[in-house]
Amino acid sequence: MTVDITTLTSRQACVEADNADELAHLKTRFVIPDGTIYLDGNSLGVMPVSAPERAREVIEQEWGRDLIASWNTHHWFDLPVRIGEKIANLVGGSRGACVATDTTSVNLFKALGAAIDIQRQDSPERRVIISERENFPTDLYMVEGLIEFLDRGYELRLVDDRAGLESALDDEVAVVLLTEVNYRTGRLWNMAEVTQAAHGAGALIIWDLCHSVGAVPIRLDDAGADFAVGCTYKYLNGGPGAPAFLWVAERHLARARQPLSGWWSHSKPFDMAVGFDPAGDARKFLTGTQPIISLATMEVGVDLALSVDQEALRNKSLNLTSLLIQLVADRIPHHPLTLVTPREHSERGSHVSFSHPDGYAVTQALIAQGVIGDYREPGLIRLGVTPMYLGYADIWDAVEKLRLVLDEELWRAPEFQVRGAVT
Amino acid sequence: MTVDITTLTSRQACVEADNADELAHLKTRFVIPDGTIYLDGNSLGVMPVSAPERAREVIEQEWGRDLIASWNTHHWFDLPVRIGEKIANLVGGSRGACVATDTTSVNLFKALGAAIDIQRQDSPERRVIISERENFPTDLYMVEGLIEFLDRGYELRLVDDRAGLESALDDEVAVVLLTEVNYRTGRLWNMAEVTQAAHGAGALIIWDLCHSVGAVPIRLDDAGADFAVGCTYKYLNGGPGAPAFLWVAERHLARARQPLSGWWSHSKPFDMAVGFDPAGDARKFLTGTQPIISLATMEVGVDLALSVDQEALRNKSLNLTSLLIQLVADRIPHHPLTLVTPREHSERGSHVSFSHPDGYAVTQALIAQGVIGDYREPGLIRLGVTPMYLGYADIWDAVEKLRLVLDEELWRAPEFQVRGAVT
Repeated sequence: MTVDITTLTSRQACVEADNADELAHLKTRFVIPDGTIYLDGNSLGVMPVSAPERAREVIEQEWGRDLIASWNTHHWFDLPVRIGEKIANLVGGSRGACVATDTTSVNLFKALGAAIDIQRQDSPERRVIISERENFPTDLYMVEGLIEFLDRGYELRLVDDRAGLESALDDEVAVVLLTEVNYRTGRLWNMAEVTQAAHGAGALIIWDLCHSVGAVPIRLDDAGADFAVGCTYKYLNGGPGAPAFLWVAERHLARARQPLSGWWSHSKPFDMAVGFDPAGDARKFLTGTQPIISLATMEVGVDLALSVDQEALRNKSLNLTSLLIQLVADRIPHHPLTLVTPREHSERGSHVSFSHPDGYAVTQALIAQGVIGDYREPGLIRLGVTPMYLGYADIWDAVEKLRLVLDEELWRAPEFQVRGAVT
Repeated sequence: MTVDITTLTSRQACVEADNADELAHLKTRFVIPDGTIYLDGNSLGVMPVSAPERAREVIEQEWGRDLIASWNTHHWFDLPVRIGEKIANLVGGSRGACVATDTTSVNLFKALGAAIDIQRQDSPERRVIISERENFPTDLYMVEGLIEFLDRGYELRLVDDRAGLESALDDEVAVVLLTEVNYRTGRLWNMAEVTQAAHGAGALIIWDLCHSVGAVPIRLDDAGADFAVGCTYKYLNGGPGAPAFLWVAERHLARARQPLSGWWSHSKPFDMAVGFDPAGDARKFLTGTQPIISLATMEVGVDLALSVDQEALRNKSLNLTSLLIQLVADRIPHHPLTLVTPREHSERGSHVSFSHPDGYAVTQALIAQGVIGDYREPGLIRLGVTPMYLGYADIWDAVEKLRLVLDEELWRAPEFQVRGAVT
């Protein structure tokens, strides 16, 4: 559907855009609490309507009634690969191998370990890992932990932007680790071009898809990516802390060795053999026994994402984020809100962040108004736009609430000044 | 309760022993499928009656209704530490620090990494890791993966028994890794003595408690253990693949560094700071975001275990496994069943294994009779005895079914010869 955002200058116009939206029906597949405009699906996605029933089945029938037999009869053993294959299709990586397992951080360690292992064989002099200073911290922390543990002079080199990346790419670089959409600014890397640049310099590249999968079309195969990791509890609506995924390009699969070589990555785990022999397929990136209730429930969200055309979803996502940017500019011009998200479509993910001198208090006051966004240091009001369950009128209403919070200075209330743990 | 096992020579005597058992009521807290005698709680524990309700609450209310706020309002962030503290109390480790997180395999990597890091500082020449040849394979595989990744001449030295261990303990040994109860034979190590022997040789020791926690009283503090890991889906009835745990002695806590340093192990994760700074407490052994549905549901099983006196439970466990051994000897003497589990109480965990030339088929035929045990290579019929939900008459009935399977040669049926995946 083509929507001219500039015509959406009233709530009624937004309602009409919703009425014409072929994706609007998707909202009925999710539970949105009454009175809430949920702009935090980039942190924790909402619950699919059918998730509780799937969880109940896994818990009461598969665990409670069928017990140990469920590993085979209900295919628990196959879940990481079965769901992994679905995710591979979703991220344009069907020519690679993918497993749904563990956490993003742990999968990052495996991917980093495998990439470093390849480079140690091919180019042992390459001991630099490049990442972005503004990357989500766990990515950097995992690199630091790995470097310290290896204790072989590896080094983390941080860059600030595309130009910095390109000038940092020299013959010392082993691995580039980037998050496709930045968790704070929403800036989107050009995966194909950056992958090509990394390869041109002889480096391997790992893409963290946490803030893009399910909201931005991804083409890992076409981009020539080497490895990818990502989570399933944001735009994939898999449930709190649901297992993450790891993808590896087909060309690396036979050779790749990852350090967390537990029994689930063995070629024949039930031979209980002495001596590790890795599986030849995606299972080589597994480690231990997976949390089946969380894993099986997560599949519901993945199936919903797969049921939607990713390009249509991207179109709607851009419409909604563009509308949000435009409405804030037009209707809240007299407050110190600074857009930190790129205006260029090709550089924007699916969330929009504004800085404000009192960003924390403003975010809390907005939440009290039923508009659930979140706060990120320093000073950022972060508004996630999940195109599967948000509409044009939702964006209108959210901006009006933000206007109210700022015009009426509701954020100055003492209860909004107190810092608590934030997510 | 004191039970003279030798008097239990009839089903009626077993029923009377159940009637006199102060722990018999615990069975009502669990769902045991009709017509089933479940002797596989050492692989996957049964479902607590209250687990589905807890899961429903987490899914429908905490995720579905309260969404992102639940990280704080429903204390999702605190679950690994809160449940970890409960497990620490259960394993006699309240003077150490414990987190419920990730898988046993991943936690083993963290514990191994931390132990090796300590030794690298104190005794860098120590590069041998000792384990037992018959250890559960993932323990050995994880050591292999770590050694290969480090690539610094570390070596895995395998021993077969206590004598072999003691003679292998020399000044090259950095770490000893043992599973307290062997997954096949049910043999129980003497934790206090072996820990003392390891320390006497200058080694650190990691105990894998997977096959003991919840069925064997454990005293990590008293034994002077350095690290421990274990799972929660066996005798703790936490649910399929529920998150595991990692414990570290207080004396190592300040110094310990583990390689999987994700954001959950940072001192201030929500500062989103560049530069890793580890938490000073148990959280330093966390890595990434945890699968909340599986984790929260698991707590129900931990709470049930904590409600029971571990010594009384151990007494009942020994009574039941002794009865099983005695009844097989008395009532099935003319079949080639060989007990591989130690008869000595001090050397026995809570499962009993018999080898049989056709162990696989016998196990399958027994399962078809409603007695759910499992098979382990080579030739072992493995019968797990969870004292929380099994009674004396259950053991009688199970042995009678085994006698039927063998006397009637039911195991010769073609359908029991076909090998499938086994758990």
